[in-house]
Amino acid sequence: MRKVAVIGVGLHRYGKWDNKTSYRLAKEAINGALKTSGLEWDQIQSGWCGHIGQGMTAGARIFSRYGKTGLSITNVENASASGSYAFRGAYLEVASGEFDIALALGIDKRFKGLNVSKEKKPSQPTLVIKKFASDARAHMKKYGTTEEQLAIVSVKNHYNASMNPYAQYQEEITLDDVLNAPILDYPLTALHCCPIGDGAAACILASEDIVKQMGITKPVWVITSVSKSEFHPKIDSRDLTMITSQEAYKRAGIGPDDLGLVELHDAFAIEEISISEQLDLCPIGKGGKLVEEGSTQINGRIPINTSGGLLAMGHPIGPTGIGQVAEVFWQMRGEAGKRQIPDPPNHALTQMIGLGGTCIIHIFSR
Amino acid sequence: MRKVAVIGVGLHRYGKWDNKTSYRLAKEAINGALKTSGLEWDQIQSGWCGHIGQGMTAGARIFSRYGKTGLSITNVENASASGSYAFRGAYLEVASGEFDIALALGIDKRFKGLNVSKEKKPSQPTLVIKKFASDARAHMKKYGTTEEQLAIVSVKNHYNASMNPYAQYQEEITLDDVLNAPILDYPLTALHCCPIGDGAAACILASEDIVKQMGITKPVWVITSVSKSEFHPKIDSRDLTMITSQEAYKRAGIGPDDLGLVELHDAFAIEEISISEQLDLCPIGKGGKLVEEGSTQINGRIPINTSGGLLAMGHPIGPTGIGQVAEVFWQMRGEAGKRQIPDPPNHALTQMIGLGGTCIIHIFSR
Repeated sequence: MRKVAVIGVGLHRYGKWDNKTSYRLAKEAINGALKTSGLEWDQIQSGWCGHIGQGMTAGARIFSRYGKTGLSITNVENASASGSYAFRGAYLEVASGEFDIALALGIDKRFKGLNVSKEKKPSQPTLVIKKFASDARAHMKKYGTTEEQLAIVSVKNHYNASMNPYAQYQEEITLDDVLNAPILDYPLTALHCCPIGDGAAACILASEDIVKQMGITKPVWVITSVSKSEFHPKIDSRDLTMITSQEAYKRAGIGPDDLGLVELHDAFAIEEISISEQLDLCPIGKGGKLVEEGSTQINGRIPINTSGGLLAMGHPIGPTGIGQVAEVFWQMRGEAGKRQIPDPPNHALTQMIGLGGTCIIHIFSR
Repeated sequence: MRKVAVIGVGLHRYGKWDNKTSYRLAKEAINGALKTSGLEWDQIQSGWCGHIGQGMTAGARIFSRYGKTGLSITNVENASASGSYAFRGAYLEVASGEFDIALALGIDKRFKGLNVSKEKKPSQPTLVIKKFASDARAHMKKYGTTEEQLAIVSVKNHYNASMNPYAQYQEEITLDDVLNAPILDYPLTALHCCPIGDGAAACILASEDIVKQMGITKPVWVITSVSKSEFHPKIDSRDLTMITSQEAYKRAGIGPDDLGLVELHDAFAIEEISISEQLDLCPIGKGGKLVEEGSTQINGRIPINTSGGLLAMGHPIGPTGIGQVAEVFWQMRGEAGKRQIPDPPNHALTQMIGLGGTCIIHIFSR
């Protein structure tokens, strides 16, 4: 497989954009990705569109309206991980030699079928909230994880998002805010859950030849893409993210200690704690301690969700996985503004989970 | 890119299967593909699921229920061409070296949003029918194509389907049947339009190394996969299928005269006539003559839709593009039963169109 780099990214701010069409959101993200890369639209050879609620012709509708260039178009749906799989499709096309330049777009307007709540913050526990509340209680009982540790995840991610112009929430919150928010299902309060929203994210991937030809000075290389679904519980009882990350580290030839940034699936605060363990950023059971001691802050040992994560940057579904890549891109290039990690990371990892049991991990280097 | 072969296919008969779940349909198709290939489920490394109405977790739901093996799972939606794009995804994964063995599944139960009609045959002209009726009238006016030539397409494809145990319609019809069927929008009668239905189709793709290791004696090689969307009319006024096929022939290193079978998108009879021209199987305007003179029959110069095509085998959407690959597989291996082409084709082509303006073509060799 050929070397592949991300050479441009663009976002439309996540939020509630009732008066904007999905095309308008997508257009802004694509504009941004083209501008960063220095490419023109007619140089794009393939377009992947990740979404869950935009219909079976979403990609064709959006890309053709942006400009009819004859590019190959594929729509991908994998629940929360839809954007990540669109990214993977574009990556494989370039890695295989099928195309030299491909664009991955994530787009969604609020999906009516899976809304946690129609309000700004969820107010009623859904089955999904109950599942993660149960996970949180089990983690607290088994490992001594505390309500405060869970709350610190939200406080940290809202703080990061306050410095991210593309985040849905850009206001800091306090520990008291989180702990005193309405309890949905103990221990999860409304501020432990990601919002719903609209948004768009795009990135452009190119082969090594193109990177050289164009003289791109700060490419962000995709060094591995690993996707797995649930194993048979009788065969293998390990966690899905754990198995996926183990293969990703092996294929990338690096370990968790080499990472300078992780963007992970924190739809609920407990996930950031348990996934940080499953990614081997700390021992199993120590995820609460990891966040409490400040290791996952922007200036910490292993910054997690500097974008604000799903909890505060937002989780418009289709865009989310590609928004993670945008954050990696900016942080590695030293272009993340006020939330810049002091030493831009040499390696970074993105992780998403899709309902129904899929996990997808990408590892990047500069 | 590595050489990739289709080594197994399986279908569930297309039709109206109200009492069967999508899982039951899919299971039968996957069983068939595994049986033909001689593989076990736990040897499959990746699963692609093409569909339009099965929800954002379709692949995870079906593949995990079939057996949790940890495979990579991606859902693809591209309207009528969804199955073909799932096939392309699996092909790229194997061609790139990402995986050695991948499965592509097409699955759909009747999609409520796009039904031509709820009846066995459509009875009211929809916008889609009106569009193709208009295309047919234009073709008749410009090239002298006749009502009888359009009807012969349907008669031929129903005859082919009468010998296909997986076809939705397995009864022969006569010219009079077609011409005397209710007119939906002149010149299209109900028997010029494909039915709606449920179904499943699966195929397994493997690298050349696997083909050799397993001693597979009759692999069907995928020699090219080309996907394009609409060009800008100001830049290029040629037809989308024409442009896509020209690139496919070039990349495959063969011409239309080398083909021994074409499975194409005949959702409406006029399409078989115009697409046969766009694929350069005959000069522009001569598609009506091509079918009238018998050249596209099973024993003709260039057999088209020996499966029965969308018109008579059926068009359950997700499965359709993979069902085309199954027909190519059987015909090339001399395993197509009563509808076997006397000299099994050395090269074959499949073509699908997706609403919104995408075209996808695969060329195969044995």
